[in-house]
Amino acid sequence: MKEPGGRAVPFKEKIARASRENSSRIILALDTNQGPPHGSLRRARKLLDKTLPSLCGVKIGRQTVLNLGTNRTIQITRLVHRTGLPCIVDDKLNDIGPTNNAIADAYFRLGMDALTANPFAGWKGGLQPVFNKAHHEGKGIILLVYMSHPGASEGYGQTVTEGRLKKPQYVLFAEKAVKWKADGAVVGATRPQVVREAKRILGKSVPIYSPGVGAQGGELAAALEAGTDYFIIGRSITESTAPSSKAEMFADLSMNH
Amino acid sequence: MKEPGGRAVPFKEKIARASRENSSRIILALDTNQGPPHGSLRRARKLLDKTLPSLCGVKIGRQTVLNLGTNRTIQITRLVHRTGLPCIVDDKLNDIGPTNNAIADAYFRLGMDALTANPFAGWKGGLQPVFNKAHHEGKGIILLVYMSHPGASEGYGQTVTEGRLKKPQYVLFAEKAVKWKADGAVVGATRPQVVREAKRILGKSVPIYSPGVGAQGGELAAALEAGTDYFIIGRSITESTAPSSKAEMFADLSMNH
Repeated sequence: MKEPGGRAVPFKEKIARASRENSSRIILALDTNQGPPHGSLRRARKLLDKTLPSLCGVKIGRQTVLNLGTNRTIQITRLVHRTGLPCIVDDKLNDIGPTNNAIADAYFRLGMDALTANPFAGWKGGLQPVFNKAHHEGKGIILLVYMSHPGASEGYGQTVTEGRLKKPQYVLFAEKAVKWKADGAVVGATRPQVVREAKRILGKSVPIYSPGVGAQGGELAAALEAGTDYFIIGRSITESTAPSSKAEMFADLSMNH
Repeated sequence: MKEPGGRAVPFKEKIARASRENSSRIILALDTNQGPPHGSLRRARKLLDKTLPSLCGVKIGRQTVLNLGTNRTIQITRLVHRTGLPCIVDDKLNDIGPTNNAIADAYFRLGMDALTANPFAGWKGGLQPVFNKAHHEGKGIILLVYMSHPGASEGYGQTVTEGRLKKPQYVLFAEKAVKWKADGAVVGATRPQVVREAKRILGKSVPIYSPGVGAQGGELAAALEAGTDYFIIGRSITESTAPSSKAEMFADLSMNH
């Protein structure tokens, strides 16, 4: 997607447009890993047909890319792009510069518009090259700030000493997200206090992406109020008996403020 | 590979045996990402034919798996296995439990014997499930302790406060490697002091894997003396005009103590 002047449209704008057009802040976490790849592809297509009108984006796990393989993954990203929505690969990138760039290139060839990365990898010779590459190509990098599983506190919840200052690790990560011009920051919906604290640092420049919303959507309301911009929802939609109306319900809730 | 009693042979033993048999502590980092996949596969096979007798294992980057695709990756792991060597995928896993397990399953199906993981992800609901799965299947998990790029100091070099204690992040990671019964710990050969400090914590139970050896092998001698057990070497072999004799040279250096 290029703008009239030939400039690549930044990822942040692509997803914001899709969100406005579909009146939804819901990103579907599409992970179909059971059984052989052709069955997974068929199930993925069916799910997308039912839910795309209620979404602003689709997130694909790297286990799904590994299982589907190159050609089937491209079929999925094409299907999503035809409706004007972007695709995010949840890579949690954390390698050295040349490797990060090679991984990003491989995903961009598969049609991914953004990827997640762990700021723990650091800037110099780490994430700097892939930020440059991504932004040059109108692609996005979304940084992890605080994940949603119990063990996340071991790393994201650490207290880090820098000179005389003590800061929580997730505060350092949110500060890096601003400094590095990240296209998004991931904070689990299960921690609305962290969402609120991250929002104070991120302001309007870095949108918050929150996974961890359960089937009833209770976490969604609290996180929305605390500052989440987009919700990443998987099983609560994909394992529902009525994915279409479930996605619509979440979309309505997400615009409710 | 099973032992007479039916027990899966632990990864640590597989690579130790290969190292003894081939008189080498060298793991080839095989990353062929230029050009179309069939060319990459051909170059990879040629490189392996020339170097396998001087290696104790092969490490494959996830960009290479993405570029080669399922079938060509399996051709590589089969070729390596025929010579009795194990394959490690350099995944730097750092996700939630179910996702880690799905990623590991995908790699095990491709013939990988071990994968790298970032201890920053934490134990509960993070790396615990994949440690259980891997060890049950005789597969290995190798934890990052200190990477080799300049920006690594931002995360791995942090000072972390735990109660009244202050510890470097890499010391916490080495302690986790022991506690979690990791099959290896990655410490860059460019930081021999860190190798030495990590070795004091890891002892004989967790072998040290060191990337970052340049073409002349100077880093190798210092890291070997400090406690490195295995060296991960890529471009210094793959971009040499004589990969076979280069691999042999490194193998000789690595057994020189």
